[in-house]
Amino acid sequence: MLEKVAWMNLLFDFYGQLLTDRQKDFMELYYGQDLSLGEIAEEFAVTRQAVHDTLKRAAQLLSQYEEKLGLVEKFNSERNKLAEAGALLDQYSATCEDVRVQRARDILKEILELTGK
Amino acid sequence: MLEKVAWMNLLFDFYGQLLTDRQKDFMELYYGQDLSLGEIAEEFAVTRQAVHDTLKRAAQLLSQYEEKLGLVEKFNSERNKLAEAGALLDQYSATCEDVRVQRARDILKEILELTGK
Repeated sequence: MLEKVAWMNLLFDFYGQLLTDRQKDFMELYYGQDLSLGEIAEEFAVTRQAVHDTLKRAAQLLSQYEEKLGLVEKFNSERNKLAEAGALLDQYSATCEDVRVQRARDILKEILELTGK
Repeated sequence: MLEKVAWMNLLFDFYGQLLTDRQKDFMELYYGQDLSLGEIAEEFAVTRQAVHDTLKRAAQLLSQYEEKLGLVEKFNSERNKLAEAGALLDQYSATCEDVRVQRARDILKEILELTGK
């Protein structure tokens, strides 16, 4: 389940702005803030079933965007490579004070931190 | 004009799969292969005006996706940072044979080449 939540949050980060406001609200509360279907239903004065259906539809849409565009997958594979380069420079720069290596390492670190890996 | 063409090609790379087949065909021929409106019209047996309208609509859609998602801008800004890190390592590794630095540089080079910068 945790993996699904992480994946949904990632899809939502990339494509969430293509959803309707209601879909965005429910996704944010359910996957981002871990509210239950019942809690969301109460907050919006709708049925639990309506929340379920909206979430299901939003998840389908996000998955379809990824199926067509593949940007999350591309992003993930690039992140893994950058993390590898960053780790190598981290190791190396521990014994090397060349300012270019330090700067290159800092740039990679900054990019990886910005994108949460 | 060249800048617009480059920008359209970039938008198309990211979001092109969200267009209809006809929109994709026309964008590919006009921006990717530099055919004229008249040539596309002849090839598809439609009016020049129809080609123009389809291209205009497709360009609007791609721009709207970027306005909402901003992934091309994010990608570009990251590319610039990576190019900086790559250049620093390139300089440094000319006088350093440490295998970790070489490998980190190769990873950056690979990512930058894959994405045409």
